[in-house]
Amino acid sequence: MDSRDIRLAVIPGDGIGTEVVTEALKVLEAVGTKIEATHYDLGAARYHRTGETLPDSVLEELRGYDAILLGAVGDPSVPPGILERDLLLRLRFTFDHYVNLRPVKLFPGVETPLADTRPEDIDMIVIREGTEGLYAGTGGVMRAGTPHEIATQESLNTAHGVERVVRYAFAKAQSRPRKKLTLVHKTNVLTYAGDLWQRTVNRVAEEFPEVTTDYAHIDAASMYFVSQPERFDVVVTDNLFGDIITDLGAAIAGGIGLAASGNINPDRTAPSMFEPVHGSAPDIAGQGKADPTATILSAAMLLDHLGRHAEAAKIEQAVSEDILERLSGWASRTTHEIGDDITARVSS
Amino acid sequence: MDSRDIRLAVIPGDGIGTEVVTEALKVLEAVGTKIEATHYDLGAARYHRTGETLPDSVLEELRGYDAILLGAVGDPSVPPGILERDLLLRLRFTFDHYVNLRPVKLFPGVETPLADTRPEDIDMIVIREGTEGLYAGTGGVMRAGTPHEIATQESLNTAHGVERVVRYAFAKAQSRPRKKLTLVHKTNVLTYAGDLWQRTVNRVAEEFPEVTTDYAHIDAASMYFVSQPERFDVVVTDNLFGDIITDLGAAIAGGIGLAASGNINPDRTAPSMFEPVHGSAPDIAGQGKADPTATILSAAMLLDHLGRHAEAAKIEQAVSEDILERLSGWASRTTHEIGDDITARVSS
Ligand SMILES: CC(C)[C@H](C(=O)O)[C@@H](O)C(=O)O
Ligand SMILES: CC(C)[C@H](C(=O)O)[C@@H](O)C(=O)O
Repeated sequence: MDSRDIRLAVIPGDGIGTEVVTEALKVLEAVGTKIEATHYDLGAARYHRTGETLPDSVLEELRGYDAILLGAVGDPSVPPGILERDLLLRLRFTFDHYVNLRPVKLFPGVETPLADTRPEDIDMIVIREGTEGLYAGTGGVMRAGTPHEIATQESLNTAHGVERVVRYAFAKAQSRPRKKLTLVHKTNVLTYAGDLWQRTVNRVAEEFPEVTTDYAHIDAASMYFVSQPERFDVVVTDNLFGDIITDLGAAIAGGIGLAASGNINPDRTAPSMFEPVHGSAPDIAGQGKADPTATILSAAMLLDHLGRHAEAAKIEQAVSEDILERLSGWASRTTHEIGDDITARVSS
Repeated sequence: MDSRDIRLAVIPGDGIGTEVVTEALKVLEAVGTKIEATHYDLGAARYHRTGETLPDSVLEELRGYDAILLGAVGDPSVPPGILERDLLLRLRFTFDHYVNLRPVKLFPGVETPLADTRPEDIDMIVIREGTEGLYAGTGGVMRAGTPHEIATQESLNTAHGVERVVRYAFAKAQSRPRKKLTLVHKTNVLTYAGDLWQRTVNRVAEEFPEVTTDYAHIDAASMYFVSQPERFDVVVTDNLFGDIITDLGAAIAGGIGLAASGNINPDRTAPSMFEPVHGSAPDIAGQGKADPTATILSAAMLLDHLGRHAEAAKIEQAVSEDILERLSGWASRTTHEIGDDITARVSS
């Protein structure tokens, strides 16, 4: 067990972000990890106060940490896209988080909205590309506000960017019992990008003869998530499709309150960043209603990424047990209470 | 009641397309519509035989019909994108099918994969833009096959294109009891296109003061389709997001075998085209396993579009009754048998 302190940058962000991060830090501390946490007040409040989203100097400071824990970013008082692009996506892009790792897993005891579905039917990992595609942000507007306005968005896909995430996905599939990898794209319409993705999968597949590969269009895949989730083991897909199917995945696995994610730089040239899949949920912010479980599970992924496998497993175990308890009915705990209950389990 | 013959172009297409179209034509005939149907053998077979997807002369001929009924297009023997782009999408674009109308409706008696969901919970209409966005097909590849390859896709959105479909969607919402319109987009990432869509909705909303407007990001919307489908009444969205959520919609409403669609040119400057949401399903083609109901419902939409409201309603009624019968267990009818049963109902 590695016993160095973890130098952690914490970005609670907006809305329920602050609430859920507090609980995750409590659990991290209780599991016995030595953490030196530094908080960064990035988000809507700072934007309104100073006009800043992510100053260059802060970006450079963040680079020095072992990892970043992020709550959620976004507030209705800020025009759409500003915090998302200039803060969240800027971090993902600058720190080259090309693997966005999002497990979709139905914990025993969790109610899924799907009828007749058992935990063993929903157990996949979605590997979403995190640094290119339509998220590149290129595009523009001409003749804005006139009847002749044109607005464009561009999806940028590179062999470099696609191959590295595809390779990571194959390795992940190889490590799992079913060894199945499904590419999700829309090759019949997005022919240029789709062709690059499909050729890359075909080529890398030769290095992983034990892995079975499959393909589904994004529209069909969305249907299968609901009708045949057992079809999927490891899914690899682009940035936008991954955004969509991981929210859908969260829904089938019992809700966004449980979905964890890691924005990972596998080459470790910059810190990886862990955050719940959910957003800042301004409608319930400050009311103690948010489920901190997704953030706690994201913290477990963080430990795992830093080689603290035992602690990570302990948190996951505590969460599983806590979720099983929900079966017995006391579902309406506050954010704090859920955090406390999980903290108690990891401490014992 | 209009009693002129309908001049109908029929494109059975590939795979199960031929099978389901045969049944729909049977029902159309039985309901008492005089139809003069001309078949066009477009699709994979013709492509392999002659290299043609959609010759210009055929395109111009098709322009002369009152409507087009299409089965399905696409075959694994043809590289992805060729038939889709050069045949299906070319028809949608050339005939300016800017409204892609896709009801998502849970018929009583149909089993939905969602637990605890009643027919009144799933009753929406998705209005998908059909002529622009990422479907424009612009983009390209540079340094193909090398480690420095770049592949791009461009989403093109125009004020003209967005406004007309948004206006149609508001009118549709206005005509329904709930009068609610939800824009689905990803304004926080696709800021240029998203801004055009959101501004257009805001502006047109002023002309429809009775309609409540709402917004959901595509990722959240995908989640809500599964967790809170009752949230939606009329949905308006772009071409790609519409593709994804209508397949998802088909899944929650009991499967792709029932999902109908109309590619509509509301200005009637060219024929509209009706087709099931499902594809050519080569895996089950020729086996009499396909459910023709989606195509039969698409034929009803076709009649409705041409002002034959009574006949359209009669087919919808027959389908509802046929579906209710499924409850009693005889679910494994062949394509023909389902067609025959619905035909018998509309004839009686
Ligand atoms: C907030 C938003 C920019 C972000 C994304 O689209 O990636 C979120 O939806 C996510 O999935 O992490
Ligand atoms: C076949 C394909 C090009 C088509 C689309 O993407 O529009 C289909 O999925 C649909 O929804 O009609």
